[in-house]
Amino acid sequence: MTTPPGTALEVGARVHFTALPGIPLVQAGDALGPLIEDALTRAELQLEPGDVLVVTSKLFSRSEGRFVDMSTVVPSEEARALALDVDKDPAQVELILRESVGVSRKRPGVLVVRHRLGFISANAAIDMSNASPAHAAPGTGPWALLLPEDPDKSARDLLAALGVPGVGLVVSDSFGRPFRVGTVGVAVGVAGVPAVFDQRGRLDLHGRELQYTITALADQLAAAADLVAGQSDEARPVIHIRGLRFVPAESHVRELLRDPEVDLYA
Amino acid sequence: MTTPPGTALEVGARVHFTALPGIPLVQAGDALGPLIEDALTRAELQLEPGDVLVVTSKLFSRSEGRFVDMSTVVPSEEARALALDVDKDPAQVELILRESVGVSRKRPGVLVVRHRLGFISANAAIDMSNASPAHAAPGTGPWALLLPEDPDKSARDLLAALGVPGVGLVVSDSFGRPFRVGTVGVAVGVAGVPAVFDQRGRLDLHGRELQYTITALADQLAAAADLVAGQSDEARPVIHIRGLRFVPAESHVRELLRDPEVDLYA
Repeated sequence: MTTPPGTALEVGARVHFTALPGIPLVQAGDALGPLIEDALTRAELQLEPGDVLVVTSKLFSRSEGRFVDMSTVVPSEEARALALDVDKDPAQVELILRESVGVSRKRPGVLVVRHRLGFISANAAIDMSNASPAHAAPGTGPWALLLPEDPDKSARDLLAALGVPGVGLVVSDSFGRPFRVGTVGVAVGVAGVPAVFDQRGRLDLHGRELQYTITALADQLAAAADLVAGQSDEARPVIHIRGLRFVPAESHVRELLRDPEVDLYA
Repeated sequence: MTTPPGTALEVGARVHFTALPGIPLVQAGDALGPLIEDALTRAELQLEPGDVLVVTSKLFSRSEGRFVDMSTVVPSEEARALALDVDKDPAQVELILRESVGVSRKRPGVLVVRHRLGFISANAAIDMSNASPAHAAPGTGPWALLLPEDPDKSARDLLAALGVPGVGLVVSDSFGRPFRVGTVGVAVGVAGVPAVFDQRGRLDLHGRELQYTITALADQLAAAADLVAGQSDEARPVIHIRGLRFVPAESHVRELLRDPEVDLYA
């Protein structure tokens, strides 16, 4: 499938999501570009301008070697006190604090922080569950996996490696959120596609300015991809999206982050 | 298109979204079933078990006649004081208070409440911008449009009218959220498809229990649909989704709402 079916509809009216098959467990140093190109081929897809890829942050984290051997993490005084407070492992709390710039909320079993990249998330979005590197020496670990150092740069670099102009890329993660149960996909990095879709100034059907005028485009891409990724039995960390229309953009995930000074919930 | 292409991939690995064309501006009393059936036909789709429809709440609200003539709304003492506080129209604040059970946050220009249905949202999710009914008498209005009385029931009734078993339906709206800029699609009603996807007990690739185990399925459906709906020049209030797999379920949108007692941000 190289062109979308249903061309009687305008571009954008029919959008196709493909969870790319056969992506192996990535190890530190693995180049993601060739792995994704192989997976596209397996899905009978060729990357085209206007396509978007949503790639889970874990793939970048593993490729970039963002593993931490928890047995080497020495908790500070502050981390030990906080660990007691929230009933968590002191080394885990130490690592969470190192990755964050402040605590947002805490409760036994729950530690929500502002990550150094600006995201509010539980446990600084550190993956404690599924993270061991390929050749962990005996007696090491357990292992944790941090977010990429600079997810926007990870996204830009992968786009450059893929070499097709006009493609968008979102680095995604799954976050909980206030008020509502369950996780949703969110963007932690973006390149090539706008982070937000700003419709301010556009008029509604009655000629009045639209009431809600900024859409979190990259977050909605991440949520849609998470929906599709969650459908498979095997891990499907890369989702290919075809049929959207967007104006290619230099973008930054920080465009999605509300200024803490005006955030009523921070 | 009646069967998804790309059948070399397992079910769920390729998912197709179609923004249904030609849905007219719905008026009070209009039955949505025939309008959606016509739009499916225009898109060369026939509803099948396993399909999901995401329908914006405004379509139900208009069909159910949830219009309010703002010139008839008399603000209470409480509404007038709050309106002064948040620099909003007193009649609008009165209507917001009538639709809600409490104020979550306020600031000049911003009034975030808990809707009587349990959602935390700005302005009780009332549409003040685009809402006039078909034959508004001269001298009436402006008009506001409330959420449906019982969006889960609206969803169930529409599914029954469409008459195809095994179809899911999500009633969607666009909400802002803490921490992050821009709106995302969220579910305000659901039928036929699970509201949440609970994977507790499932194991990860290393045989450990998955760390994040409840996915907000209906919210991700709404976010994905909002992404696709936002692509068109004309309003596309109904999105058809094919290729997902889910176990049909009696579901309720309240499954997506965190108990205020344990919500760290409510």
